[in-house]
Amino acid sequence: MTLSEGAARAYELDRRHVFHSWSAQATLTPMVLTAAEGCYVWDGEGNRLLDFSSMMVNTNIGHQHPKVVAAIQRQAATLCTVAPSFVNDARSEAARLISERTPGDLDTIFFTNGGADAVEHAVRMARLHTGRYKVLSRYRSYHGGTETAVNLTGDPRRWPNDHGNTGTVHFFGPFLYRSEFHATDEAQETERALAHLERTVEMEGPATIAAIVLESVPGTAGIMVPTTEYMRGVRELCDKHGIVFIADEVMAGFGRTGKWFAIDNFDVVPDLITFAKGVNSGYVPLGGVAINAAIAATFAHRPYPGGLTYSGHPLATAAAVATITAMAEERIVENAADIGAKVIGPGLRELAQRHPSIGEVRGLGVFWAVELVRNRATREPLAPYGGTSPAMNELVAACRAGGMLPFVNFNRLHVVPPCVITEAEAKEGLAILDHALTVADAHTV
Amino acid sequence: MTLSEGAARAYELDRRHVFHSWSAQATLTPMVLTAAEGCYVWDGEGNRLLDFSSMMVNTNIGHQHPKVVAAIQRQAATLCTVAPSFVNDARSEAARLISERTPGDLDTIFFTNGGADAVEHAVRMARLHTGRYKVLSRYRSYHGGTETAVNLTGDPRRWPNDHGNTGTVHFFGPFLYRSEFHATDEAQETERALAHLERTVEMEGPATIAAIVLESVPGTAGIMVPTTEYMRGVRELCDKHGIVFIADEVMAGFGRTGKWFAIDNFDVVPDLITFAKGVNSGYVPLGGVAINAAIAATFAHRPYPGGLTYSGHPLATAAAVATITAMAEERIVENAADIGAKVIGPGLRELAQRHPSIGEVRGLGVFWAVELVRNRATREPLAPYGGTSPAMNELVAACRAGGMLPFVNFNRLHVVPPCVITEAEAKEGLAILDHALTVADAHTV
Repeated sequence: MTLSEGAARAYELDRRHVFHSWSAQATLTPMVLTAAEGCYVWDGEGNRLLDFSSMMVNTNIGHQHPKVVAAIQRQAATLCTVAPSFVNDARSEAARLISERTPGDLDTIFFTNGGADAVEHAVRMARLHTGRYKVLSRYRSYHGGTETAVNLTGDPRRWPNDHGNTGTVHFFGPFLYRSEFHATDEAQETERALAHLERTVEMEGPATIAAIVLESVPGTAGIMVPTTEYMRGVRELCDKHGIVFIADEVMAGFGRTGKWFAIDNFDVVPDLITFAKGVNSGYVPLGGVAINAAIAATFAHRPYPGGLTYSGHPLATAAAVATITAMAEERIVENAADIGAKVIGPGLRELAQRHPSIGEVRGLGVFWAVELVRNRATREPLAPYGGTSPAMNELVAACRAGGMLPFVNFNRLHVVPPCVITEAEAKEGLAILDHALTVADAHTV
Repeated sequence: MTLSEGAARAYELDRRHVFHSWSAQATLTPMVLTAAEGCYVWDGEGNRLLDFSSMMVNTNIGHQHPKVVAAIQRQAATLCTVAPSFVNDARSEAARLISERTPGDLDTIFFTNGGADAVEHAVRMARLHTGRYKVLSRYRSYHGGTETAVNLTGDPRRWPNDHGNTGTVHFFGPFLYRSEFHATDEAQETERALAHLERTVEMEGPATIAAIVLESVPGTAGIMVPTTEYMRGVRELCDKHGIVFIADEVMAGFGRTGKWFAIDNFDVVPDLITFAKGVNSGYVPLGGVAINAAIAATFAHRPYPGGLTYSGHPLATAAAVATITAMAEERIVENAADIGAKVIGPGLRELAQRHPSIGEVRGLGVFWAVELVRNRATREPLAPYGGTSPAMNELVAACRAGGMLPFVNFNRLHVVPPCVITEAEAKEGLAILDHALTVADAHTV
């Protein structure tokens, strides 16, 4: 590495004083990022990289959008923070703009600092609303890093945090490529996955279940887009048993799937929606819960036993107002849908024809997974579930060397650029990926 | 109310779309805040109020400090957000500045979004470091709103969230004015409270206890400043049994007590410190955990199973860098100590001589509690534990009518202004309080 002086100092201090998420600290050699704009970032050596990761799939509006930056600067000059008990215009306006976009009667907004606490509070609301404790979620899911959220999570990050006492139960969701239900087509997968969920609810006891929490489209776990029939079936099952349907849209919401909310792809109205990331592209930490009228009414005269100092933070909500307004004015959600349908989807399918390491591509909008395998026939993954492999590490290195930042999880590479990505940028990234995949191909058998 | 047009719209949208923390939503008539500067805020009718609350006891540097506002604006123009896996100069520098101020070898910083998730992660670190699960905390404490944090909390906000399964155990801490130990002086209270904690540890099983979590000075629960002997006793007890000592400094840290960390008042080095609020005065949501060398080493080669998208957020950490730097340059921590010792403490004690509704005043720095009673002899509180009363509501209304925003909890009024408060401002607030206390006096018997 030949880091700039500033980057070298940042790196040295990082290694001495910064504790990183989800990591063995001594094993890290993290990349320095010094600048970013639109779909590009710059590393500490001055290299420009195309951001096909949107960081943690959060910069939906791209990096450093001038209108959002200006709104943050204006709000900083006006009023950075107020306590949550007061009224503030930025918070009020953000709540209005979000409510206008949520489906159905989810018109009351509780603001949090991020996605994990959004999930914590949504589960609390469901438990108090129903008087029940148990919460169901799927294997192959991610819901956040705090105690309740990480125990709802259906991936190995839950394991070290699981003491068997958080009232969470996991079931298998639809995932045709690795079907738990021995299904051979989507219709059969949907039918069997719904029957499995219904059976799980029966076996757990419907009257013990407060909520079913589902990412509308599972994100880090693999972007397995469910069918409309599956999501409608879940809604019906919840209605039948008085179970709260929580749609976790922390990663999938705010344009990522080519709709404001991913649930809009299925014409289903959940009872609660959790959001974060795309709501203001993470420019200022912000998350929240959109609450339907029935659950809001539960807390009309009974105090809601939850809260936080930065709930509805002026700077964070001002960034949300600017982000949502710019996304609407600049048709950024529509761009995500178009680029997915016309460039990324076709482009990835074309790559799949030429690269034997690609087992499947799936997704919509700017939310795509490339499932990498050692063998297409056996579908043996290129890295084990919960782990990594030399092949995957080489693939990531090849992408970076080619000038592109990918998002990877286990044996998957996700193509999750900002929603503002242009056709030219998407094609640039696909070309880098095309080249890098030859590295993965070399590991196929 | 004769709200300005903008304030009226903010109010209307708030009532229609915003869900507030810790509240029965239909019963609220929240005050609109439109502007703030230093120790003052302006409401929606244009009234200026002296902020004796620091909002949620977080604006330690005062409102709209020009150096912090400028730093946020600069960082916004440079780089608002990066994923936590990368290195960023703002985060590195904030970690350095915090590490320089933490006691002992707490030199590794894990950044979170606020205080609650700081506590969640500190507890997780302690559990994984010790291989034990149970965590002890005191009654009369507040540790945050998420699942683990709210169950550690020793106030009624825990109750609706307590399902008996979070591995938390509560004990009584030292609080001479309402002694659980029938003590008659501080030395006896300290000795008996320590013996009680030691007995509790013995009864719970030392080898089952991962951590003892204590606010270095309990905040919302009543600002009961412990003795040095108590805190040293806790440290010794933890050492004896291999228990992690977590000092929760979310409210007490960063100048509030007239020291950078409240634990510095006792010359005790905990194993973990949780912080938030004052670290950047809440201008951008930020919290974190300062980790000692032994616990950091636990996660050197073993992955830490926790994280979050906005960990070490550039905008939030840039605000921390500016805040800490300005606090050092402008001797703001020293000011908090001076104002407490020379103005607020003596002023409150003088009020206590003239107002029969004051049972006790206690505190240090800009962190003071006024314990209000119906009767000094019986010490009957002016509002019941966990509740409010007409007397307390009238007192708050009188403070606001006089032009001052107080912080209240149950039967207590806390004097917790920004650390930058001047002698003149402190005296102005005390004069308003003096006048308002006649309302409380009328309820004494």
